[in-house]
Amino acid sequence: MKSSAALKTTPADKLVYTFGDGKAEGDVTMKNLLGGKGANLADMCALGLPVPPGFTIPTDVCVAYYAADKNFPAALDDQVKAGVAHIEKIGGRSFGDAKNPLLVSVRSGARASMPGMMDTILNLGLNDATVEGLAAKTGNPRFAYDSYRRFIQMYSDVVLGVDHDVFEDLLDLMKNERDFAQDTDLSADDLKELVAQYKEKVAAHIKRPFPQDVNEQLWGAVRAVFDSWMNPRAITYRNLHDIPASWGTAVTIQSMVFGNMGDDCATGVAFTRNPSTGDKAFYGEFLVNAQGEDVVAGIRTPQPLTVQGKAEGGDLPSMEEVMPDVFADLVKIYQKLESHYRDMQDIEFTVENRKLWMLQTRNGKRTAKAALKIAVDMVNEKLITRDEALLRLDPLSLDQLLHPTLDPNAKKTVIARGLPASPGAASGKVVFTAEDAEHAANLKEKVILVRIETSPEDIHGMHAAQGILTARGGMTSHAAVVARGMGKCCVSGAGDIRINYAKKEFTAGNATVKEGDIITLNGSTGEVILGSVGTVEPNLSGDFNTVMAWADAARSLNIRTNAETPLDAKTARGFGAEGIGLCRTEHMFFDAERIIAMREMIVAETKKAREVALAKLLPYQRKDFVEIFRIMDGLPVTIRLLDPPLHEFLPHTENEMQEVADASHLTLEAVKYRASQLHESNPMLGHRGCRLGVTYPEIYAMQSRAIFEAAADVQKAGGKVLPEIMIPLVMTKKELQLMKAIVDHEAAQVKAATGVDIAYQVGTMIELPRAALRAGDIAEYAEFFSFGTNDLTQTTLGISRDDAANFIEQYKKQGVIEQDPFVTIDQDGVGELIRIAAERGRATRAGIKLGICGEHGGDPASIAFCQKTGLNYVSCSPYRVPIARLAAAQAAIRAKVAN
Amino acid sequence: MKSSAALKTTPADKLVYTFGDGKAEGDVTMKNLLGGKGANLADMCALGLPVPPGFTIPTDVCVAYYAADKNFPAALDDQVKAGVAHIEKIGGRSFGDAKNPLLVSVRSGARASMPGMMDTILNLGLNDATVEGLAAKTGNPRFAYDSYRRFIQMYSDVVLGVDHDVFEDLLDLMKNERDFAQDTDLSADDLKELVAQYKEKVAAHIKRPFPQDVNEQLWGAVRAVFDSWMNPRAITYRNLHDIPASWGTAVTIQSMVFGNMGDDCATGVAFTRNPSTGDKAFYGEFLVNAQGEDVVAGIRTPQPLTVQGKAEGGDLPSMEEVMPDVFADLVKIYQKLESHYRDMQDIEFTVENRKLWMLQTRNGKRTAKAALKIAVDMVNEKLITRDEALLRLDPLSLDQLLHPTLDPNAKKTVIARGLPASPGAASGKVVFTAEDAEHAANLKEKVILVRIETSPEDIHGMHAAQGILTARGGMTSHAAVVARGMGKCCVSGAGDIRINYAKKEFTAGNATVKEGDIITLNGSTGEVILGSVGTVEPNLSGDFNTVMAWADAARSLNIRTNAETPLDAKTARGFGAEGIGLCRTEHMFFDAERIIAMREMIVAETKKAREVALAKLLPYQRKDFVEIFRIMDGLPVTIRLLDPPLHEFLPHTENEMQEVADASHLTLEAVKYRASQLHESNPMLGHRGCRLGVTYPEIYAMQSRAIFEAAADVQKAGGKVLPEIMIPLVMTKKELQLMKAIVDHEAAQVKAATGVDIAYQVGTMIELPRAALRAGDIAEYAEFFSFGTNDLTQTTLGISRDDAANFIEQYKKQGVIEQDPFVTIDQDGVGELIRIAAERGRATRAGIKLGICGEHGGDPASIAFCQKTGLNYVSCSPYRVPIARLAAAQAAIRAKVAN
Repeated sequence: MKSSAALKTTPADKLVYTFGDGKAEGDVTMKNLLGGKGANLADMCALGLPVPPGFTIPTDVCVAYYAADKNFPAALDDQVKAGVAHIEKIGGRSFGDAKNPLLVSVRSGARASMPGMMDTILNLGLNDATVEGLAAKTGNPRFAYDSYRRFIQMYSDVVLGVDHDVFEDLLDLMKNERDFAQDTDLSADDLKELVAQYKEKVAAHIKRPFPQDVNEQLWGAVRAVFDSWMNPRAITYRNLHDIPASWGTAVTIQSMVFGNMGDDCATGVAFTRNPSTGDKAFYGEFLVNAQGEDVVAGIRTPQPLTVQGKAEGGDLPSMEEVMPDVFADLVKIYQKLESHYRDMQDIEFTVENRKLWMLQTRNGKRTAKAALKIAVDMVNEKLITRDEALLRLDPLSLDQLLHPTLDPNAKKTVIARGLPASPGAASGKVVFTAEDAEHAANLKEKVILVRIETSPEDIHGMHAAQGILTARGGMTSHAAVVARGMGKCCVSGAGDIRINYAKKEFTAGNATVKEGDIITLNGSTGEVILGSVGTVEPNLSGDFNTVMAWADAARSLNIRTNAETPLDAKTARGFGAEGIGLCRTEHMFFDAERIIAMREMIVAETKKAREVALAKLLPYQRKDFVEIFRIMDGLPVTIRLLDPPLHEFLPHTENEMQEVADASHLTLEAVKYRASQLHESNPMLGHRGCRLGVTYPEIYAMQSRAIFEAAADVQKAGGKVLPEIMIPLVMTKKELQLMKAIVDHEAAQVKAATGVDIAYQVGTMIELPRAALRAGDIAEYAEFFSFGTNDLTQTTLGISRDDAANFIEQYKKQGVIEQDPFVTIDQDGVGELIRIAAERGRATRAGIKLGICGEHGGDPASIAFCQKTGLNYVSCSPYRVPIARLAAAQAAIRAKVAN
Repeated sequence: MKSSAALKTTPADKLVYTFGDGKAEGDVTMKNLLGGKGANLADMCALGLPVPPGFTIPTDVCVAYYAADKNFPAALDDQVKAGVAHIEKIGGRSFGDAKNPLLVSVRSGARASMPGMMDTILNLGLNDATVEGLAAKTGNPRFAYDSYRRFIQMYSDVVLGVDHDVFEDLLDLMKNERDFAQDTDLSADDLKELVAQYKEKVAAHIKRPFPQDVNEQLWGAVRAVFDSWMNPRAITYRNLHDIPASWGTAVTIQSMVFGNMGDDCATGVAFTRNPSTGDKAFYGEFLVNAQGEDVVAGIRTPQPLTVQGKAEGGDLPSMEEVMPDVFADLVKIYQKLESHYRDMQDIEFTVENRKLWMLQTRNGKRTAKAALKIAVDMVNEKLITRDEALLRLDPLSLDQLLHPTLDPNAKKTVIARGLPASPGAASGKVVFTAEDAEHAANLKEKVILVRIETSPEDIHGMHAAQGILTARGGMTSHAAVVARGMGKCCVSGAGDIRINYAKKEFTAGNATVKEGDIITLNGSTGEVILGSVGTVEPNLSGDFNTVMAWADAARSLNIRTNAETPLDAKTARGFGAEGIGLCRTEHMFFDAERIIAMREMIVAETKKAREVALAKLLPYQRKDFVEIFRIMDGLPVTIRLLDPPLHEFLPHTENEMQEVADASHLTLEAVKYRASQLHESNPMLGHRGCRLGVTYPEIYAMQSRAIFEAAADVQKAGGKVLPEIMIPLVMTKKELQLMKAIVDHEAAQVKAATGVDIAYQVGTMIELPRAALRAGDIAEYAEFFSFGTNDLTQTTLGISRDDAANFIEQYKKQGVIEQDPFVTIDQDGVGELIRIAAERGRATRAGIKLGICGEHGGDPASIAFCQKTGLNYVSCSPYRVPIARLAAAQAAIRAKVAN
């Protein structure tokens, strides 16, 4: 806990940093001292932009304040006075002057952004005298009293601790009495009366009048900002984000400017390029005689900034037309800002009596598509380098480009929310079984498969469905992992829906959805929506390919894919996968044709009977591998031998069990008994992986033979085959030695039979802590390690990912963990084991190939870790391949910079 | 694999080591060169004992033989000739001499014992001529031809590759023709004819006559011994026991002596002290005119050696009476052997024509009781030191002394075998449910509880039963662990029994056992026996206490116990436990009175409702702790807060669910729904341990309050209470920080309410690999670590101990693992994590207390590891406490020797 670190006790001598009139005592590099907001305003000011003048009390004053039992440093008073004088001088108004009053805003600003930690106080400086001055000066008493009313409410709430409901009640009362619908119906006199009522209430609450002394107002506000640093909300936020309490917050006091003082006033927001398409065109909206919040509130329709913007819709006049001078200033400023910050800017401005004031600039948010275009354009404009362009893109945002998305303009009735398990969007009729999904697909119907949770038996139904919704399971549950692999939309762990399989319906809140009803899933947000919502199909731009090419040139990690179907393999290769890092052979056995033979094998009571059943499976396996080897021609294909416990393949219904009994010439009783024998309390830690290979070597022998026969076929036909055979769940060297002997034996046999010599490798998953620790021994027999980070996370942390949903959200909320460890590698725990294994593996076998093939292979933070640890490749689901390519490039660039 | 190490190529010049006539060229230190047998014979010879003369070809000749493509070193021929001459000279007989033939035995002997690797060849030197000489010299043609017949069969089988069935068939044929029942019915002439038939068969098989040249016989035998070193049986054995192939085997050739040449001949076995009681009295049996195998075969009743032995039963004359001279020699020899080897010896001898020959001596096997007595006696006799006495005892054997054992003389019908999960023996009526067990116990009936597997709900039934039998589960399954904790006999994982709960019966092979039938379990062997078998109650001797006192003086590790019931706590304290290392609070909730409140708590939908239910549990918990604190007065008590997932406490039947629904004012539907919500795929890795404490802090708060209130009560009454509160399944520092805050808060509250200040500690289990790796952080909040090696093994190796039985035996058979990792700590994997955690924990908090509380706490090899790793204590089940005390003493003594 860094929060317990001692607070520093003395600030520097300089307790106030001014800005305004094209000069500033701070700049953007002084965030630690001035907070984000203070530094940004200083920076714009130093650029010569018109920024309302102000000053910042730096963070070390806050630190000193706490160290001195909440007393301000003695020197602060004078320096604040000087700061106020600085504002007065530039603006030509005086703080507390009844004729020409200066009003200021007071805002907190920490080194790191802490949104919502404390409310801003606006219009400070108003009192019974200055409000009249403001009314006179603006010729707008309604404006003046509305500002005063708002100030009293805000200040009383934040500084004096009077709940804002008190004021809302008085406002409502007055509106009711006068039968007004809108606040704006209130006249200046109404507001004046309201101000009087407000002050009375405040006085009643705090046992003294609302402060009329503007300096008392100011110090109260500064103290409130400092105190807010230690309020429970802020402490929780800091704990969650690992922000030390010792940082403290800065306070920025800035002159108010008003866009709502008349028709020569305005306020607006703009983007230096189009945030939706990325087009290089100034883009934004403004409102005449309005405040910033009016633009956001959407009561009045804003006007476009440019003539071009006007052309895009609407018939309101543009700023370019109605305020050409101010517009010309704005254009100069936005160009200056973009070339200064070398990125698309999102700016806020106010025009007060034809004078343009800049209130904020920051890097603008943009869609994934726009981000790509802006990055490519800025490189072409020589504004940024390719490396900078790559670093600026959010790899995860690419996902938006690869999947259908919901029409953003459509109306939606959200009935439940789950985890955004696999991106994309899909609508279809609800079905509750894999069989129904397949049946509907055969009739060309679109369906959503709804299950409490899915298992490998449901895969054919998942293939048939447009999307998958589950009530249980996390981001890495079976449903989520398989759906992502298929590039299919999935919402998992929607805990609020209750599924009744018997009735073929589910409920969510008050809604009941029956089989055949249509729902829509948004796999990118986790929303479950009643009815059909239009979707937009993906369309990959030339910019996408440009960026991917740059990424490929920059990265050093290879990117492979996890794929076992020809469709997945093709998709992944299309997305740029450089081989298969994980081909799970078990998914291949669930086909209707094969499952019976698989089950025969499982219930067999002798090795001989098992071999008979395995012989039936061999041709299927061979065919699978032939297809995959052809698609991956010239690229490595890592095939994992059978991994899940055998009971996963067993039937559950009596009918299916009878079918197996008949095929195996056994009694139903015997099949049931075998099933009960195979039952496991913790299948994740059970009789699976190479433990199957050790106890039933004939299974791995069959699979190896199928691999080599397929490889020989393809190689004979002129293909280039690079099989890498991977033994799962190894915990000792001896297991790998035994399994490698089986593989080598089959390879030799196939070579003898076909005359074809296949260059193959044998390696292992490192997915148990013991395997990581014993990697030095294991490397004696392993030509490669593939870190199975899903299982390694489960075992290292002792968390079943299927059961994690019950507490992992709580863990995140309480700050026990920052990230779901199944999404981003737990670098301190799992990561240490990976580092140990890499080091010990290399010590035994210098050139050992290292990769990861867990879900983490597609997670940018985890990819950065892989780069740092010096792995050779990451393997991820097909739709994650572009993300991984970009993330790997970023990791390589950052590594280059760090060296 | 050490077997791939290169073989050395040249032996030393000396290729033969002779012994005989009170002299020997080797001694007991030369095992590596002469093999175990060769060195032992040489040693006895050098002691001046009468050993039949012989010589040994050392192991390096075997190595050279393989290095030279199975060719003997050139010099071997001459040296073997000299060796034979040495035997001839001492014995006065000549090898191949038709008048006075020397016969020899040829035996293999490796550095390590490899039982059954190769058969011994006896009577080598017989041929058509020497057999007549033997007949004439002994006056016993039947003896001579029987010896020849046996030699041909043995030699042909081992050296010539003729299957021994061939000979058995001929023998049977002759017996049938002559209508004889016994081999002994055959006359000398019959045997002579049989020899002719044997030779004919051999000639037909090997296309040449049976070798008549005695030197050819000898070299064939030597070659066969060397070749046997590389036979598949030997290779497998070596792989399993990690014996390098490069060691090679020695060959020992020794003169034959015969105890069956007449009434002045005899053969016998003896122990220098009574192996059953440990009494210091020469003890053994002999047979006149017999061979060693006759003693073993039990066809004739052997006679006692001593007059005292005669007094103990039987009326046959003792050797002391019938061969007083020989007996006097034997007494001198046994005394010499015992004082030489400083341990009780098991000796074999033969008397040939009144001449005593020693054939073997070795440390004698003995019962646990005898071992204690012999150790104590020998210390008193100043033959050995206390340290030596302690090192000689097998800690595990003490278990025999603490539990009832089966009457060794009773007849038994074993119907099935399982794992010897918890020692002791018990008979009783079979019941199939915990309820039936409890019901029967109330009626004072003795029952055996038979379950497919047990769960925490069965604990009250296990308490009520005499013994527990399960069809599934390993040595560390629930049943096994709990039974050991209770000191109750248990056979687990008896895979051959099929339990039919519906019919209330089980089958095992052909036997069907119904409810109410009586069975007997032997928990020390895993036998399941039909009917009742008498048992012998334990009776701890003064020797036991003497040895325990020595052990306590020698050890540095503290020994605590795992106990949660007053009975267990009392038992353990009686056995010398120095505190409780693990008090599992969950077992306390299964009581009929409490389980409803527990279930109410679990199904509660709000924190408030949970707190209401918890308030009902608080008084029960407090009472539990009061009792335990009283029993453990002055000793530390480590209490683990709730650990298992909540669903373990849920009811399964509709009736029970309704009961919970009623108590909680919920619908049955809601209770069922909650149960389905709590279901987990891998409960071991689920929502348990401190994850419960984080999500439901009120549970841990209640438990902490109960602990402190109980401690305050007991301390007020003058007791000394040292509670150590242990947080389970921690994986991050933050979890422990949050949980410690709860504990500290309750401690402060109780202190404020009662005015009693309790000195307590808060610590954590280290049972996840991540916790071990992050021990440095975690130690910031932990005052002690207790290694939960059960779970740490499960997670590090990825093995569910409930499911391990399916493959762990195979793993042992195939040499993948040497020991069940749930019995003995896997030092290379789990051990490394423990070392890491100990090191990092101490780096943060120098004095942190370290212990283990898994099943391993009672395993001697694991205790040795704990000593080496510098832990402070081990904690084990009550009945393991004496074992742990002795094992800890041994570990300390070995550490002292090593330093």
